[in-house]
Amino acid sequence: MKTSFVLDSRLEADTLAVATLALSELRLMNDCRWPWFILVPKIPDAEEIHHLEGDDQLELYQEINCVALALDAMTGCSKINIAMLGNVVRQLHIHIIARNQGDTNWPNPVWGLAGVKPYTEAIAASLIAKMRQRLD
Amino acid sequence: MKTSFVLDSRLEADTLAVATLALSELRLMNDCRWPWFILVPKIPDAEEIHHLEGDDQLELYQEINCVALALDAMTGCSKINIAMLGNVVRQLHIHIIARNQGDTNWPNPVWGLAGVKPYTEAIAASLIAKMRQRLD
Repeated sequence: MKTSFVLDSRLEADTLAVATLALSELRLMNDCRWPWFILVPKIPDAEEIHHLEGDDQLELYQEINCVALALDAMTGCSKINIAMLGNVVRQLHIHIIARNQGDTNWPNPVWGLAGVKPYTEAIAASLIAKMRQRLD
Repeated sequence: MKTSFVLDSRLEADTLAVATLALSELRLMNDCRWPWFILVPKIPDAEEIHHLEGDDQLELYQEINCVALALDAMTGCSKINIAMLGNVVRQLHIHIIARNQGDTNWPNPVWGLAGVKPYTEAIAASLIAKMRQRLD
């Protein structure tokens, strides 16, 4: 029996909904230390990008590209960090993060750091609106 | 005047040559704590994958895919980690790492950890030969 896609409960708890793209759910990590988006392909049981079928893989790379371009333009950041780790949450998800000199833990990565700082509702809404506008 | 591609000196110092692919140099991080390969597209001044021209971007994604599949098959690892960070070394390079439960710093990322353990010559040569064979 085929399973259907359900967003991982930890990803759901840690993020805010942004947009539903052709292949993926786009979410905003609810941590205002960095502008940090996550793409989750709506493919049941997917864990590794290199195991996806060709069309899905290509679509996912296009979505990564669109989000990275949008985030770069929105923030004017110093560097975009893109990563697929999945050592803790196995459901395939792609991190796309705007980094700047002097941000928390710069120049090291953002994962596994204590001290999550949730957004205020207004700031999250503004960031989400900017991303949606760029993707339209 | 167009500049030509030169491998970043830090990447060169930290890695061993594996193969020259259509677009990228494939290198092995000289740290036996994890099977960790790096792709460096031979494009002068490239820093962000989303700034590459379409054909180069597609080729790079195909090379990432080939290396990830090869590494997965070679190692039978628990998870492949793929990342483009570049906060320290700006030259575009893609990390492709085999991770296993219980390895150094599992399940957290591998970057920025002290204690590099260089390979013995024989073990590096064996890993490089396996990767070359898979890519052929």
